[in-house]
Amino acid sequence: MGRTLAYPKRISNTANRYKHRATYDLGPIHSIINDSQVLHVSFNPGPEDPFPAILPMIGQMGSYEYPSADMNEPLDCYLHGYVSSRIMNLARSSDGQGLPICVAATKVDGLVLSLTPNSHSYNYRSAILHGYAHLVTDEEEKLWAMKLITNSVLANRWDNTRVPPDRAEMQSTVILKVKVVDGSGKIRDGGVSDERKDSSSEEITGRIWTGVVPVWETFGQPVPSGEGKVGEVPSHITSYIELKNAQNRAQAEAAVKVTLPGEEQH
Amino acid sequence: MGRTLAYPKRISNTANRYKHRATYDLGPIHSIINDSQVLHVSFNPGPEDPFPAILPMIGQMGSYEYPSADMNEPLDCYLHGYVSSRIMNLARSSDGQGLPICVAATKVDGLVLSLTPNSHSYNYRSAILHGYAHLVTDEEEKLWAMKLITNSVLANRWDNTRVPPDRAEMQSTVILKVKVVDGSGKIRDGGVSDERKDSSSEEITGRIWTGVVPVWETFGQPVPSGEGKVGEVPSHITSYIELKNAQNRAQAEAAVKVTLPGEEQH
Repeated sequence: MGRTLAYPKRISNTANRYKHRATYDLGPIHSIINDSQVLHVSFNPGPEDPFPAILPMIGQMGSYEYPSADMNEPLDCYLHGYVSSRIMNLARSSDGQGLPICVAATKVDGLVLSLTPNSHSYNYRSAILHGYAHLVTDEEEKLWAMKLITNSVLANRWDNTRVPPDRAEMQSTVILKVKVVDGSGKIRDGGVSDERKDSSSEEITGRIWTGVVPVWETFGQPVPSGEGKVGEVPSHITSYIELKNAQNRAQAEAAVKVTLPGEEQH
Repeated sequence: MGRTLAYPKRISNTANRYKHRATYDLGPIHSIINDSQVLHVSFNPGPEDPFPAILPMIGQMGSYEYPSADMNEPLDCYLHGYVSSRIMNLARSSDGQGLPICVAATKVDGLVLSLTPNSHSYNYRSAILHGYAHLVTDEEEKLWAMKLITNSVLANRWDNTRVPPDRAEMQSTVILKVKVVDGSGKIRDGGVSDERKDSSSEEITGRIWTGVVPVWETFGQPVPSGEGKVGEVPSHITSYIELKNAQNRAQAEAAVKVTLPGEEQH
């Protein structure tokens, strides 16, 4: 590639701790968002409510204008929702700029069990995006985003269902398009990292086990619905489960093996 | 028990869709929060920033005043963080009421693969809390909360590490206590649910496989750190892994078998 695009650093997305774990590169940030089954989306309901709201939503990064854009290129975040939900009403009634929102995704890859509670940690990947959300009104773009999001739940699922959606289905579904303003990611991997005061004590290292317990998401055996007429589980499902189970496990186990800089803790 | 406490319904926490899946009962909401390895915490950074912020944090529900309180009773949410982080500075400088925040947790239990993209869904459990966050200043309460949170990462881990934390460790760690104002949960379980227009079509049911793929979090083989002197993985770790792996899988598989009300979709 030779080119790495990065999000601008603003106060709101700049890490002030463990800076070496922070990334502003589009590629890793977009990948963490896209690997997450659920995104947590925050917005402010209105001046009368002091609390920001958080909704769990399904979403995906993509470019309708340049569908072949890869993870390292500027992308929009598409979020799937229901027509009458609060966030959709707010986005609908927001002015030209759109509704300011924050999108977050986090995956735990392992429990890092060290000598002291303070040096305990997770191996993890997390990402946030800030941006302005609009309702997608173009029918072609909406259909494109619905396919993108459905296939993020299970690869190639769209073409293996009854499509296209009918008029009622198109009307009850709303897609939010988030124009991203900035974003950041944080990745912690490697083994345990204790302070010298503890790791140099034989009394302490002699009685406390340290290491990492890898953690990953497992997809189990598909359970057919009672009314199903298709006997065998189709290969787009079985191959996805096999691939994801292998990838998820490999990622959690590989994270443990990353070497940490010598001076680091946590 | 005979008594079920519920959070008050405010506009901000009241579900307006799939109401039968919503719960305001303290027990399930607190359990979803406590079962989550990571909580997503949202707050407003200040009047100059239009975007709410989201931080991934580790936290647990508990009652310092009544440590034996169970999940169905009023509890506070304790969040773990670093002394100089933005949310801690905001909570420190907030007025007497504390910093208004939203805490969210979501677990996916299965992919619900139905006849149409619109009727696709997840089996999931999600919960949100709204409340006011303060820094815990009482040293006894702080230590109690640190133990609570460490043991939520892995049961009984606290007593199997070098404790108590020394002065520097106590000073670098900050615990936020969230006084909960309201909360809500949403649980989706069961099998696929399609609309009659599709499920009555033999052409459609004859070619599209429907069912649920259970999803759960797996803990792998512990990987000892290179410098470890303790040969065998201790039983507080192996028994936790065994228990969690069995529980997580059982929960995802049990969710599939719940019978849905006849009229429901999604």
